[in-house]
Formats: sequence, C-alpha cells, structure tokens
Amino acid sequence: MTVPARTIRMEIEYDGTDFSGWQRQSGALPTVQGAIEAALGRIMQENVSIDGAGRTDKGVHARGQVASFATASAMELGRLMHSANSLLPPTIRITAMRPVPDSFHARFSATSREYRYFLLEHPSAIDSRFAGCSRGRPDFAAMNRLAAMLPGTRDFAAFSKEGPDQQGTICTVTSARWYRSGRFYVFRIEANRFLRSMVRFLVAGMIETGMGRIDEAEFAKMLESTRRLPNLKPADAAGLFLWKVRYRA
Amino acid sequence: MTVPARTIRMEIEYDGTDFSGWQRQSGALPTVQGAIEAALGRIMQENVSIDGAGRTDKGVHARGQVASFATASAMELGRLMHSANSLLPPTIRITAMRPVPDSFHARFSATSREYRYFLLEHPSAIDSRFAGCSRGRPDFAAMNRLAAMLPGTRDFAAFSKEGPDQQGTICTVTSARWYRSGRFYVFRIEANRFLRSMVRFLVAGMIETGMGRIDEAEFAKMLESTRRLPNLKPADAAGLFLWKVRYRA
Repeated sequence: MTVPARTIRMEIEYDGTDFSGWQRQSGALPTVQGAIEAALGRIMQENVSIDGAGRTDKGVHARGQVASFATASAMELGRLMHSANSLLPPTIRITAMRPVPDSFHARFSATSREYRYFLLEHPSAIDSRFAGCSRGRPDFAAMNRLAAMLPGTRDFAAFSKEGPDQQGTICTVTSARWYRSGRFYVFRIEANRFLRSMVRFLVAGMIETGMGRIDEAEFAKMLESTRRLPNLKPADAAGLFLWKVRYRA
Repeated sequence: MTVPARTIRMEIEYDGTDFSGWQRQSGALPTVQGAIEAALGRIMQENVSIDGAGRTDKGVHARGQVASFATASAMELGRLMHSANSLLPPTIRITAMRPVPDSFHARFSATSREYRYFLLEHPSAIDSRFAGCSRGRPDFAAMNRLAAMLPGTRDFAAFSKEGPDQQGTICTVTSARWYRSGRFYVFRIEANRFLRSMVRFLVAGMIETGMGRIDEAEFAKMLESTRRLPNLKPADAAGLFLWKVRYRA
C-alpha cells in the first residue's frame, strides 16, 4: 500500500550536556538532530531529515524544541514515538508527535522562540548541570533594568557569533525579564528569532553588569553597537534552555 | 610547629549518578568518600579518614551529607575547602567546613536524617537524572495514607537489604509525607536512622500501591512483617537525596 507523504510535528526535550548542539554534523560528533534522525530512520526504514525550530549550541538544553519531518510511512504515531524513545539515549525524549498540514515547517512557521537562562550564585554539585554561575550575588534590580532595555527591533550583531554572510542580524525581542525561583535567578526572553549564541552573550553582559564589572551605561552602549564585542564571552551553555516555540494559532 | 589534632565537620552536596555510593571501597570503583579522602589527603599530605552521617547507596544523591575527620594540619579551613573543591569532580562540592569539639562524630552524634525522594509520572530527558518514575499517575491520597502509617518505632527488616549480622533493624520514623512540587511528587521522611535501601523499598511499596498493583491492607501487612519482602525491588536510586542531617543543638 502506498501512502502519500505526511508532515509530522514533534516536541522534544533534551539534556544538551553531552551533545555537540542540535544540528547534524558530518563526522562522529553526537548531535540531537543526528540522534533523532538515526532513530526515526531505523524504525521507518527510510532516510529522515528533520527541521528544528531552534539550532541550539553545544551544551544547551531544550524543554520545548519543535521539529518537523515528511515521511511516506503510515506507522501509527504513538507507536513511532514510543519506538523512537526506546532507541534514543535517555537524555533525549520526544514528548509529542502529531500530523500537521504540509505547509508546516518547524523553523519557518514559528512566530517566536522563548529561551530561559538559569543562574546560580555558587557552583552546585547537583544544580550546575542545568545552570550558569555568577560566583557572587549579582544586583538583581540592575539586571532587570538591563533586561528592560531589550524589547524592540534592533540589530543584535554585537551579541552574536553570526558571520557576515548570514541573513541579517535584526531581531524583534517581545519580552525580557529576570525572576527568582528558589536558589536560581532566571532570565526569560522571547523574540521572533535569535542569532547564534545571542542569549548567552546578552546574559553574560547582564551578569557582568550585575556583578559591577560593567556599568549600565556601557551595557546600553553595547546594545547600540553593531560590532561584535571583543571582550564579552558567552555565558555557560549549561544554564540555557530553549523553552518554548510558538506558532500562529 | 606541631598543632594538636582537630576535628573538622563538613557539609557535602553530590550528584551520585556516577558514583558507587558514599562508602570507600577497595579497588577502582569511584565513591564519594574515596574522592574526598583522596583530595584532602593530597592537600594536607596526610592520610585522611572521614566518617559520613549517611552511607548512601550507588546512584543516590546528597544535598546535605555531613562528614567529620581529625587532622593534624593547621591549614585555614576556607583555603582547605577551596583547594579540595578544585581537586574534586564538579559533581561533589564541600559547601561548609568548621572546627567542632573532638567528641563530635558525624555518624554517631547525628540525632536524625532526612531523605527526600523525587518521583515523576513520565521519564524526562532533563529531570530523570534526579527522579524516579512511576510510568503513570499514582494515587497521591493513597500514597499519603501509607506514609501516615510510617511514623513510630518498629522493625523495618522487611524494607531493607540489611544482612542478619547487622546491629538491629529497629528505626524510629518521626515524620513521613508526600507533597507536590511542580511536576514532581516528593516523599519526605525523617528518622533517627535508616537501614540499607530502606527509603527506596518504602517508596517502591508506596508507588506500587499508588499505581493500584498492591492494595493498602497488603502494604500495612508488609509493614508488620519483619521478613525481607521477596517481590519488592527498591525504587530507582536516581530519585533519592540525603537531604539533611540533624544534631543536638
């Protein structure tokens, strides 16, 4: 029986610690996309190519990554998801799978991405797997004054590893704020798109300011700049989660 | 300069995932006690033997393990702690260190231990490192009715791996209850002492009952028994934390 190709949408959670990021790479480096494509391909006995909504960097985690793929397989999706999760390492879980119109594309159809960054004052044997560390108490109110500068449409080239051949560095941030949750400082940011390492560069700038090593006016000037900031290192990937991807209802 | 030996008390946090438990072992198996003794010994250039308040099993974590040791070294404790943490793997952190009277012994002086068990309904790529899984929704009220049976002094031999040559199997449980925290069911139990794997056996019995595979009367009968329960496997070590050790004020 021949079945017309269908488009499937997945939600995916992963602990990025031991992966070289989302995106498939040639060679032996383990990536999340590579692991999922291998698992689905083995089950459905076809070449599977999946598109993810966010290309998370090496070591970055996801609570709500979304990916889509086309397949000729008619396999029942509950069974496909269950089989894929049995083959995948326990640090990658497909949490939902459903058919969507062929016009759906996880990356191009997304209207916004939300990231969250978890920060601790001190290294922890348990929590540091999923958090960055400021090594001292940052000025929470100051960090929130900086976060309040972020919403709007601007060129974020200064806060990115994006090369000059990329398709533009203009992003629209719709919300950005820090909140407290237990022993964590959490930064929540939503935008239509993000440049490579952008959240980690922004977080690094806010931590440096919160720790008094950069002043607020300097951070504001960094935001106005469109030249890569030479002295800013991205915050530790361990603290960053791709939290949610939104689509037009 | 000769310094009289002093007794030092430490608080320790660890992610037990990659350790064969707390207790030092001959051979190459990595243990938390072994790692800390090696680090302290290397810094102070003496043989260090530490006593821990709780001998956590392979894979069990600690938020508030307490350990003590005697040393002839006069090294300033802040420096000692900092140096030890630099040598230790990041999954073990000494979080406090202070001198105590020589009569203090982390294990024998402790008046109670508190453990917490974290349980998820479904496996998670991120949370399963620090949680067990019931694979379905347990009956929370039923689990709390079982927990309410636990306080008091009784022989817990049925819920333990303790051999017959051990020093008694009577424990006094002072409090035990389940609560919800986000996506977790958390079991908190405090007792003067715990037998080997006791919390994990109790949790397994409560999960089995909560999932409808054992009825409550049967659990009560298990509590009355003093013979090792042949069909009960301890709950996954990943969910268990030695949370706090208490001492006479």
